Amino acid sequence: MRANLTWRFEPPTDAIYKIQVAHWPGQHVLEERLVTVPHVDFIENEDDEFGARTLRAHLSGEVALTYEAVVDNGSLKGLPAVTVQHDWNDLPAEVLTYLNPSRYCPSDQFGRFVDRTFGGTTGGDRVLKILEWIRENIEYEPGVSDTETTASRTFIDRAGVCRDFTHLGITLCRASGIPARAVSAYAHQLTPPDFHAIFEIWLSNGWWLVDPTGLAPVEGLVRIACGRDAADIAFLTTQGDVRLVRQSVTAEAV
Amino acid sequence: MRANLTWRFEPPTDAIYKIQVAHWPGQHVLEERLVTVPHVDFIENEDDEFGARTLRAHLSGEVALTYEAVVDNGSLKGLPAVTVQHDWNDLPAEVLTYLNPSRYCPSDQFGRFVDRTFGGTTGGDRVLKILEWIRENIEYEPGVSDTETTASRTFIDRAGVCRDFTHLGITLCRASGIPARAVSAYAHQLTPPDFHAIFEIWLSNGWWLVDPTGLAPVEGLVRIACGRDAADIAFLTTQGDVRLVRQSVTAEAV
Amino acid sequence: MRANLTWRFEPPTDAIYKIQVAHWPGQHVLEERLVTVPHVDFIENEDDEFGARTLRAHLSGEVALTYEAVVDNGSLKGLPAVTVQHDWNDLPAEVLTYLNPSRYCPSDQFGRFVDRTFGGTTGGDRVLKILEWIRENIEYEPGVSDTETTASRTFIDRAGVCRDFTHLGITLCRASGIPARAVSAYAHQLTPPDFHAIFEIWLSNGWWLVDPTGLAPVEGLVRIACGRDAADIAFLTTQGDVRLVRQSVTAEAV
Amino acid sequence: MRANLTWRFEPPTDAIYKIQVAHWPGQHVLEERLVTVPHVDFIENEDDEFGARTLRAHLSGEVALTYEAVVDNGSLKGLPAVTVQHDWNDLPAEVLTYLNPSRYCPSDQFGRFVDRTFGGTTGGDRVLKILEWIRENIEYEPGVSDTETTASRTFIDRAGVCRDFTHLGITLCRASGIPARAVSAYAHQLTPPDFHAIFEIWLSNGWWLVDPTGLAPVEGLVRIACGRDAADIAFLTTQGDVRLVRQSVTAEAV
Repeated sequence: MRANLTWRFEPPTDAIYKIQVAHWPGQHVLEERLVTVPHVDFIENEDDEFGARTLRAHLSGEVALTYEAVVDNGSLKGLPAVTVQHDWNDLPAEVLTYLNPSRYCPSDQFGRFVDRTFGGTTGGDRVLKILEWIRENIEYEPGVSDTETTASRTFIDRAGVCRDFTHLGITLCRASGIPARAVSAYAHQLTPPDFHAIFEIWLSNGWWLVDPTGLAPVEGLVRIACGRDAADIAFLTTQGDVRLVRQSVTAEAV
Repeated sequence: MRANLTWRFEPPTDAIYKIQVAHWPGQHVLEERLVTVPHVDFIENEDDEFGARTLRAHLSGEVALTYEAVVDNGSLKGLPAVTVQHDWNDLPAEVLTYLNPSRYCPSDQFGRFVDRTFGGTTGGDRVLKILEWIRENIEYEPGVSDTETTASRTFIDRAGVCRDFTHLGITLCRASGIPARAVSAYAHQLTPPDFHAIFEIWLSNGWWLVDPTGLAPVEGLVRIACGRDAADIAFLTTQGDVRLVRQSVTAEAV
Repeated sequence: MRANLTWRFEPPTDAIYKIQVAHWPGQHVLEERLVTVPHVDFIENEDDEFGARTLRAHLSGEVALTYEAVVDNGSLKGLPAVTVQHDWNDLPAEVLTYLNPSRYCPSDQFGRFVDRTFGGTTGGDRVLKILEWIRENIEYEPGVSDTETTASRTFIDRAGVCRDFTHLGITLCRASGIPARAVSAYAHQLTPPDFHAIFEIWLSNGWWLVDPTGLAPVEGLVRIACGRDAADIAFLTTQGDVRLVRQSVTAEAV
Repeated sequence: MRANLTWRFEPPTDAIYKIQVAHWPGQHVLEERLVTVPHVDFIENEDDEFGARTLRAHLSGEVALTYEAVVDNGSLKGLPAVTVQHDWNDLPAEVLTYLNPSRYCPSDQFGRFVDRTFGGTTGGDRVLKILEWIRENIEYEPGVSDTETTASRTFIDRAGVCRDFTHLGITLCRASGIPARAVSAYAHQLTPPDFHAIFEIWLSNGWWLVDPTGLAPVEGLVRIACGRDAADIAFLTTQGDVRLVRQSVTAEAV
């Protein structure tokens, strides 16, 4: 798996990359290499909760970052319908935050919709119904949305890309009382391989990964970072304007 | 300090209270008492970062919660202009999340406004300029906003309550590259004493508390909880509809 | 039919009432009486297109307006499915404006939704499908919406009052290429009788009135005014803040 | 003055062009020529109020429309500060509609802002203050806005193009109780010459044209159409998706 990101930082700006494979219990980084041209001394951090890693630096001019990794991502399994939805009382305290609405996921507005549309279902059954609804009602179509598009807007537009599918899925799950969080990943089974946005829901005492676009089997995904929504998991966050020069992701199953 | 919250939970619902005084290093809970009628067995949690405490239970019918505490809240000081704004590289990793936009604080939209209006200032100087701008341009006026009002809307409306002032202050600080988070508190110097929403910014290696309404000296505030915005610090969060029966806060300096 | 509107205009303000029965070909005002206490000299206008009448004055203090009318509203008929949708080329030029999005009806955002949901139908058939969809998906529930609620929000909320049903209906029709406009009316068959917001669509060379709430048979409605959306047909528009003192509508079939 | 618009209508769609010089009393079309390749039989209409002309047809494939005109646009004069703002009672009935909020001009939200910022001024003085505020606070910057951008968003973004400046100007005038409407024009003094969006306000018993961008002297503008906002004056409106092939405007003072 290999990602190349070349961006121009003009004027110079603080930047945060979230592109390294997470140190998540289920996936093992066998080999890893990070090269930047010109050389950059990054500050590297890792969060305890997810094993997500961030690289920070003050960047200037054109910077080409190449990241390569060989990963054994274990044996993720799809979400079974029989998982159990927890009362809020039975959730770990640190999971509660993923019930709250966020920048792109105004779940507070969708209570009536989920009750009317998915009423009578809970847990994995509810999530599967939500995923089915999304697949039936939202078209995968680049160019409809942009980086400001919220789940409310995608709900109206009926189209978007993986980021939008994920925001809508998270929104409908949280509105259903199910903790949900955004996950960034490498998807080697996309054509071509690419960064991918999917999400996780907390059911039966664990996080389960689902892909609302249905484009990439979760078994093949390699986790990078997680957060409330795209605001937290962007692969590149900067303070000022930056310009894409070139970007590519390649990956293959070994 | 004494808070009484009586709400009707009909139909029964999961509920989370965030009303206890935080175990924050700067403030000491000398005495404390929590009574509910009828009796409720709460699950109680405390987060490491802020010392915020949550009470969770499945509630039904009318529940009257009374919380009393005697607190020594130390000696908080106002924000000095000479504090230093950090490059992102110099921020603790756990502070980075408070740079991101959130449900009610779309700081991603305000970059040009803060550059034009507060350009040439950084750090505490920038924050003081932001607070001054808010005081000059926003009226404290109940009834203009509701629980869905975002900082974007308050920026247009030019009026709101403490929650709205706080969201706008957070938004303008984050847009300025300064980490900012919402804080709930007891304000015994408000007339009458009440819950209050204020915010903290990270400067010179620490969190500084500011009150964008200017209504309550920060020296007299007693911290309860913190989060990205009002979605995280509501004193009562429920899954279904609930109805306020009665609510009061009393407090006095000892 | 009798309407009493008592409002307090404090501070004094310009005001426009749209509460008189329209001089629409299909309905005949047999008797009519307008009384204000204190006396107000209104400027009265009538538009050519709809026969809508406006009353204008500069008002001050409490003003009680009573309007009584006896109306023969002819024999309106419900919308048949066999009506024909026109190409834009075949529309009268003055009807084109009702294809455009307006303040509360952002029809430009709903093109993909109407294509997916009502694709394969046109004309009266399409409109009937839209009305059926609204009845199945939107609850009539006061308190969910306010005077700023747009059709986009109602589409998410899945609830509202007659104004919201009408905005959503107009939005989905315009997005379908069918001219649609908002109409205010007296509905003597509502319980209790009240002002009502419904809408008209242009099909088979004429305007057809429909009630998306299904609460009042169109046969019993008495037209007042028409416009792009609620911004144009409010029964009272003022420049400053005003306060409702009392308002009532009574009506009976003679 | 010469405009060439080449668009691809695929799939075929109804289309409305508003690109001909208006038959407005103040401007005289000396010569005029319209050519389409391939040939199109347009339905042509002209409205009484403004003299705006619309061309309608069902179009298919690539259509190149060329419009040439020689116009004597009389002697428009800039807005003097001494113009008088009318009470609503003194406005012609047909002007009232331009007090209402519209799709891109939510003037209902800006009452407090205009009172605080422009309080104490009325009429031409108020409008000049509004134009000055816009010039000081909004940057002319292509790429920030798109066809969905409202005045609310431009007020936050602090940047946009002529369409956005016009929407914001209209919004602030209507919020001030001054009728305002959007106007499309040819601006031969822009570099390069282009379609331009400006607006008119009703003061001292007449419409006055102003350019909130300050880029083109109103004396040189040639009126095309008018309406509530961009939804009404687009030079090309279609039912389906269309694709720009080529577009150019050339103009010179004779």
